[in-house]
Amino acid sequence: MGTDGSAWIVSRTARAPSNIAVIKYWGKRDEDLILPLNSSISVTLDPNDLSATTTVSTSPDFDADRLWLNDKEVSLSSHRYVSCLKELRDRATDVKDEKTGIVITKEDWKHLKLHIVSKNNFPTAAGLASSAAGFACLVFTVAQLMGIKESFPGELSTIARRGSGSACRSLHGGFVKWEMGKRDDGKDSIAVPLAEHHEWDDLRIVICVVSSRQKEVSSTSGMQESVQTSPLLHYRAKEVVPKRITEMEEALSKRDFSSFAKLTCADSNQFHATCLDTSPPIFYMNDTSRRIIGLVERWNKSEGSPQAAYTFDAGPNAVIFVPQKSGGALLHRLLYEFPPPEGMNLSSYVVGSTELLEALGIDKLEDIRSLERPIESPKRDEGHGELAYLICTRPGNGASLCE
Amino acid sequence: MGTDGSAWIVSRTARAPSNIAVIKYWGKRDEDLILPLNSSISVTLDPNDLSATTTVSTSPDFDADRLWLNDKEVSLSSHRYVSCLKELRDRATDVKDEKTGIVITKEDWKHLKLHIVSKNNFPTAAGLASSAAGFACLVFTVAQLMGIKESFPGELSTIARRGSGSACRSLHGGFVKWEMGKRDDGKDSIAVPLAEHHEWDDLRIVICVVSSRQKEVSSTSGMQESVQTSPLLHYRAKEVVPKRITEMEEALSKRDFSSFAKLTCADSNQFHATCLDTSPPIFYMNDTSRRIIGLVERWNKSEGSPQAAYTFDAGPNAVIFVPQKSGGALLHRLLYEFPPPEGMNLSSYVVGSTELLEALGIDKLEDIRSLERPIESPKRDEGHGELAYLICTRPGNGASLCE
Repeated sequence: MGTDGSAWIVSRTARAPSNIAVIKYWGKRDEDLILPLNSSISVTLDPNDLSATTTVSTSPDFDADRLWLNDKEVSLSSHRYVSCLKELRDRATDVKDEKTGIVITKEDWKHLKLHIVSKNNFPTAAGLASSAAGFACLVFTVAQLMGIKESFPGELSTIARRGSGSACRSLHGGFVKWEMGKRDDGKDSIAVPLAEHHEWDDLRIVICVVSSRQKEVSSTSGMQESVQTSPLLHYRAKEVVPKRITEMEEALSKRDFSSFAKLTCADSNQFHATCLDTSPPIFYMNDTSRRIIGLVERWNKSEGSPQAAYTFDAGPNAVIFVPQKSGGALLHRLLYEFPPPEGMNLSSYVVGSTELLEALGIDKLEDIRSLERPIESPKRDEGHGELAYLICTRPGNGASLCE
Repeated sequence: MGTDGSAWIVSRTARAPSNIAVIKYWGKRDEDLILPLNSSISVTLDPNDLSATTTVSTSPDFDADRLWLNDKEVSLSSHRYVSCLKELRDRATDVKDEKTGIVITKEDWKHLKLHIVSKNNFPTAAGLASSAAGFACLVFTVAQLMGIKESFPGELSTIARRGSGSACRSLHGGFVKWEMGKRDDGKDSIAVPLAEHHEWDDLRIVICVVSSRQKEVSSTSGMQESVQTSPLLHYRAKEVVPKRITEMEEALSKRDFSSFAKLTCADSNQFHATCLDTSPPIFYMNDTSRRIIGLVERWNKSEGSPQAAYTFDAGPNAVIFVPQKSGGALLHRLLYEFPPPEGMNLSSYVVGSTELLEALGIDKLEDIRSLERPIESPKRDEGHGELAYLICTRPGNGASLCE
């Protein structure tokens, strides 16, 4: 080990994006291996706007594996971290660090400890799949550091899956399918890329971050309760989702936005229907979420075809998909119905890419006040401040090294 | 006809209650005959608190069938009224009015016109099944006037069903099952009494009337859209409801409140889940409805067994069932979490029976302010005014003559 006896450190830094499911994952058939009741499909979000960046270092001086998440130390004792790190160490190889010339053998990795520092470039508490980005990034970065090569396609995704089911999908960019698999050991429950993000280069994504007064049920315990008590969930997983997966793959391969939009909205609503069918019922959407659904549905109806599609995960935030050409019109409707709270800067209210603001010709707060009423919108109901802020983004790349 | 040539009038007045389903009806297999996708079970509400009262008169001087609903004339041209009145006239018999001695023959009824005056003793707009009470009352009163005898048990309920599906259940008191039936002509789609209201003499019902900002989708068009677009609705109707009907009948025959409560909540939530699974999604519950669900679920959890059960129809109002002995505790929780809006009288905020207010020892507004926090309640969040008012009632009798 090492070139001489002195202290050394070797590290890697990588970034992994969040993803949002358009055909939803809800319910596990194996809690330990995190095997899902059904396959799911997601889109990976642009890591410039929503990602985790993780640096993993190792040094003979380190006494223990440690993790700092958004500048706070977090225990690694949970089963999920333990599983991921064990699976990774089992696959470690002999590596030579090019910069320092340090050589670490397969055997050394069994004893060397890791320091992991991870940060999200978006608020953790906002319910934006931070655990998916975080676990994908941890697994990807450690795999890079340990020189792990996949012995079968998707092997790394089976490890990320052990950290957080949806994390497996964040390894790839664009549209990604998480195959539920059939095996009991989970080796075929892997993430598979469906379409590169540049194939959907004209898709834009607006995330509406909704202020929530209620503490939400965590998705882990929520899905356990649904599996145990919702008759509709099992029917959905067995009979409805397989058809929708096929239809969504077809819509993606044809770049058919209209079918994509219909499937996306229907599947989000069905997922929340199974939450409501849970005893006691689980509510992730609130009245603001419903107003956003109303806004999109009214717009789609008034145009006679899907202009935009919404989806909601285990929280009240809306993720809205729109073709680039209609992105300004979507932002117009959102800002008209949800103007920024009094005293807030435009740049704090609409974050991420400024492309849609520019398309709409808005560069200051006063421009919002003078937006005309969209033909299908109800009369303006001023000053609600029910949205915390909007993030304008697009599909992006999967996990990648920062160096 | 008549005892001499002079003008005469013959009339009957009857009252029919609202009912609230505990196993829900949602979706028709025949739109014209109003045949449901599944059987349903309801409880009939005390007509003293929630009922329609209808007077039907006939006179040779009347030129046309006419209807006045809550003091406004309403057209009888809709298919539903036409169906009901035709079915009733087809079954009219020779009658002799005891008071006046007037004789009206089966043949006369074909030409005699009706004047129908109907009033609800509760707000029509509040979404409290006013059409069920109204159609049940219309059919019952006309049947009395025309001396109609059922040629098979439940025949009258098949006529009320043509007016509004759930109206068939309002003819009987206590718990009532609407058998979906199998026949194409609907003759076996009838209402059947399951338990008289005095068998559940210790059950109390609190209706929370929730102010709604949104215009709701009518249940007629809502259920059509669900039948057309919700995969979960068909599974529910075919696979889930038949089991629940059996379980509910068993709970009712055993007077098992705990099973009754679990089934009631689960079925309300599943009905709303199928609304959410509809494209575009239908939302009848709002954030206030969800707060009420939270209040009941927290209470049940904290006591370790069901203390109360909630159900919601096609609107945001909650109907809460509670054993008499826990009625005061329920009202305590509701008034603590939803105090009356500033400046409102207690007697306008809690209407219907005063029994629960008395059990709680409340006779003025100040008593509400000094209510202690129930152990499981979150800290008081003052002055929301999210409830319009509460109606305290109980199960009651079916349709009956007022004379």
